[in-house]
Amino acid sequence: MSEPITIPARRGKAARVAAGEKIKVINTHGEQVVDTWAFVQHDLHECMSMEHTRATLVKIRPVVGDDLYTTRRRPILRIVEDTSPGVHDTLMAACDSHRYGLLGCTEYHDNCTDNLAAGLQELGLSAPKTPSPLNLFMNIPWTADGTLAFDPPVTRPGDYIVLEAKLDLVIAFSACPQDILPINGKAGSPTEAHFQILA
Amino acid sequence: MSEPITIPARRGKAARVAAGEKIKVINTHGEQVVDTWAFVQHDLHECMSMEHTRATLVKIRPVVGDDLYTTRRRPILRIVEDTSPGVHDTLMAACDSHRYGLLGCTEYHDNCTDNLAAGLQELGLSAPKTPSPLNLFMNIPWTADGTLAFDPPVTRPGDYIVLEAKLDLVIAFSACPQDILPINGKAGSPTEAHFQILA
Repeated sequence: MSEPITIPARRGKAARVAAGEKIKVINTHGEQVVDTWAFVQHDLHECMSMEHTRATLVKIRPVVGDDLYTTRRRPILRIVEDTSPGVHDTLMAACDSHRYGLLGCTEYHDNCTDNLAAGLQELGLSAPKTPSPLNLFMNIPWTADGTLAFDPPVTRPGDYIVLEAKLDLVIAFSACPQDILPINGKAGSPTEAHFQILA
Repeated sequence: MSEPITIPARRGKAARVAAGEKIKVINTHGEQVVDTWAFVQHDLHECMSMEHTRATLVKIRPVVGDDLYTTRRRPILRIVEDTSPGVHDTLMAACDSHRYGLLGCTEYHDNCTDNLAAGLQELGLSAPKTPSPLNLFMNIPWTADGTLAFDPPVTRPGDYIVLEAKLDLVIAFSACPQDILPINGKAGSPTEAHFQILA
């Protein structure tokens, strides 16, 4: 088991993971959304895709035992454990500079799209696009008529989810820097999170 | 108003549309799903994005009066009229050869991903990726627990939707060739559909 690796508050972090290894993602302080992406190691054009995952699982939100699928409909990750209430999001795009502009920011705001790029860059990699992420611990409820909401997480400090790699992959995380909407808690204070690679 | 342009059964078709023009998409025979994509004409990397649209509208399914947004969160299309019951899908990936392989096909099956490429190729264009489409007339209901389903359309012959271009764009359609699931009607017989450009 690796030491816990920090995903710094408002920042991104990525790692190479071999098929069969597991990744434990820890909501250290309890209210932090962690945007998560996975790319096939030998071809970053093939990546985890929320729209392909929903179409294969025929559900909005994956749970323990479910696989997550790539753009070529291959299993890339499996959810093998989850001590959180299981509230994760597959519907929302990663935040980006345009998003914060629309929310009224006039200066640069950290964002998950740039964090993905920075995390990969530390590994000498560059993604061909920003896929729609698996937003771990993000609470986007839906109603019968399809209305959504950006609600605070329902997780507790130390809650974690374990993902098993089904392919040799690159995983990337962003500790979401959203501090205008309450998606990282009503205090609007993004925090660090952690992950560990389990052999 | 242009003559109606045919989207042949199981095939793709694309067209250039200027900002301010409207596109009427007609479910000619009443049970045909039409996968729809839009790309910014001068930069096909910027395209209509379902995940950015859901995040901006804060709803799963857009209705008349709603804009549809690009990967840079700019309005690219507006829904200005809809004579159908308004059941369209933003959740499901376009079908592709991998999908039909998983459904048991051992030979090539027409698919919306290849149809997008073919439709654009007729215009001398190539998309950098296959965005998650706006699936017009596609009936994907959801439940409170997030279970989805591939159900037959609830549209009638001649139902149409009108989209107004907010940018100079390339629009692409695929008359979905899905004939294994009942998404194009219980008979499993994909048909042609039509569209018109309204000045």
